Amino acid sequence: MKIISSIKEMQRISDELRLQSKKIAVVPTMGYLHEGHLSLMKIAKINSDVLVTTIFVNPTQFGPNEDFNTYPRDIESDKELAGSIGTDILFIPTREEMYPSDFLTYIEIEKITNVLEGKSRPTHFRGVTTVVAKLFNITKPNIAVFGQKDAQQAIVIQQMVKNLNFDIEILIAPIVRESDGLAMSSRNTYLSEAERKESVALYQSLQLAKKLIEDGEWNCSLIISEMKKLISTKPSAKIDYISIADAETLEELPVLQDGKRMLISLAVRFGTTRLIDNIIITK
Amino acid sequence: MKIISSIKEMQRISDELRLQSKKIAVVPTMGYLHEGHLSLMKIAKINSDVLVTTIFVNPTQFGPNEDFNTYPRDIESDKELAGSIGTDILFIPTREEMYPSDFLTYIEIEKITNVLEGKSRPTHFRGVTTVVAKLFNITKPNIAVFGQKDAQQAIVIQQMVKNLNFDIEILIAPIVRESDGLAMSSRNTYLSEAERKESVALYQSLQLAKKLIEDGEWNCSLIISEMKKLISTKPSAKIDYISIADAETLEELPVLQDGKRMLISLAVRFGTTRLIDNIIITK
Repeated sequence: MKIISSIKEMQRISDELRLQSKKIAVVPTMGYLHEGHLSLMKIAKINSDVLVTTIFVNPTQFGPNEDFNTYPRDIESDKELAGSIGTDILFIPTREEMYPSDFLTYIEIEKITNVLEGKSRPTHFRGVTTVVAKLFNITKPNIAVFGQKDAQQAIVIQQMVKNLNFDIEILIAPIVRESDGLAMSSRNTYLSEAERKESVALYQSLQLAKKLIEDGEWNCSLIISEMKKLISTKPSAKIDYISIADAETLEELPVLQDGKRMLISLAVRFGTTRLIDNIIITK
Repeated sequence: MKIISSIKEMQRISDELRLQSKKIAVVPTMGYLHEGHLSLMKIAKINSDVLVTTIFVNPTQFGPNEDFNTYPRDIESDKELAGSIGTDILFIPTREEMYPSDFLTYIEIEKITNVLEGKSRPTHFRGVTTVVAKLFNITKPNIAVFGQKDAQQAIVIQQMVKNLNFDIEILIAPIVRESDGLAMSSRNTYLSEAERKESVALYQSLQLAKKLIEDGEWNCSLIISEMKKLISTKPSAKIDYISIADAETLEELPVLQDGKRMLISLAVRFGTTRLIDNIIITK
């Protein structure tokens, strides 16, 4: 596994690989790799000739009162894990090279970034789209893999790729869960033992919604109210949002719609740790 | 000369050319080609193996009260002129494919897009950066050529390329002028005979500024006031702005600065036709 930190060097290597007709896959991450990331890498690996994993804790996607400084980092473990899955190139740029002091450019996506995560985190998605566009131009991939865990991010990136004509195939990998159902996340490490136990309510509430729908429920506010009830039994939980929306436009649905892909998503704080989860359903 | 309108087809051809190690140059235009455009193409041609000229009157860079609908178009003449310079591929996409109805993504550049043209035309530059990024991702060039005529556009595009890590060399071609000094522009065609005569005041005022500076003037408001006086002698002229600014940051300068590249630029309406011009000076 080659470790690259220079942008120019990464571009040069990608050019060379492309000249050799190698198919490049990129998996952009913020590091602190877990089974979720590894599943993206595995999908990328089997769909490409060269797997580029990137590690960069991207400052522009954190709000001023968010956890950029405390976001967990473990570069040695990351190198080992990335290598174990067959990462060919690990790209770890510096903050200074990614965001020089005269940086002024952002990619803004209307509508779909103003709801759900974007409503709670107003500058989050412009940070995500901007860094992903940069990483695309630096690693020059044929395919890129993102996780369904960040459902809205996946939708936003697909919109950007389509609108800006990035010639890159986007694959979305399913959520990987702990044995009790909690979605894998680097932020799970923040949880106290008690919060960790209660955090399973995220998954349980989604399973409850699924069951209500399978049993014939169509009314979204009723489904959401049942999810709220379940989560409210956990003393450390504070709901940020619960949403049932069109999985493409992210418009909220009052009732389920036949034949549509719908996204049930939620964000809940357990103590000071904000976690998200989601499922896609069709009726 | 190949004429392509499909985005996918253009990307496929560019991929193929790149696999053959061909150096691709792109010259993005809005058509109605004149000597100014042809000079960009000539520079692109001698710096590449394959010259791609694009023609697209980009709706997103026109304001709601601007001249999108009346902007001059002559596709047959454009084909002839583009071919005469050695354009290998003429890319003429449709509006529907460039901006499908669910289009939501814009590239925004802070600070340097809020002054000069950006102040008079608030959504202009996000339209420019967005379409240029799209054309970059579609034509996959090694180099791209823009004109100094649109001085702020050249600065904004260079900022975008740097910030988003587009691996593309940007060349800026000097302004081409009519024999009386008027900068070539597709919009010159709007001018009445009388306005056309008076429009030479743009160039004359820049030459006056240059002379004042060569004669030892340092005070920018004094220089600007002399330029205003000259332009005000033309009955059809109405000044939008005259500016002397740092040619990188576009910050207005009260006095000239030693060793700096400075941009003297102006926008003036002659009747209903808004024209721009500029020179770069160093002291």
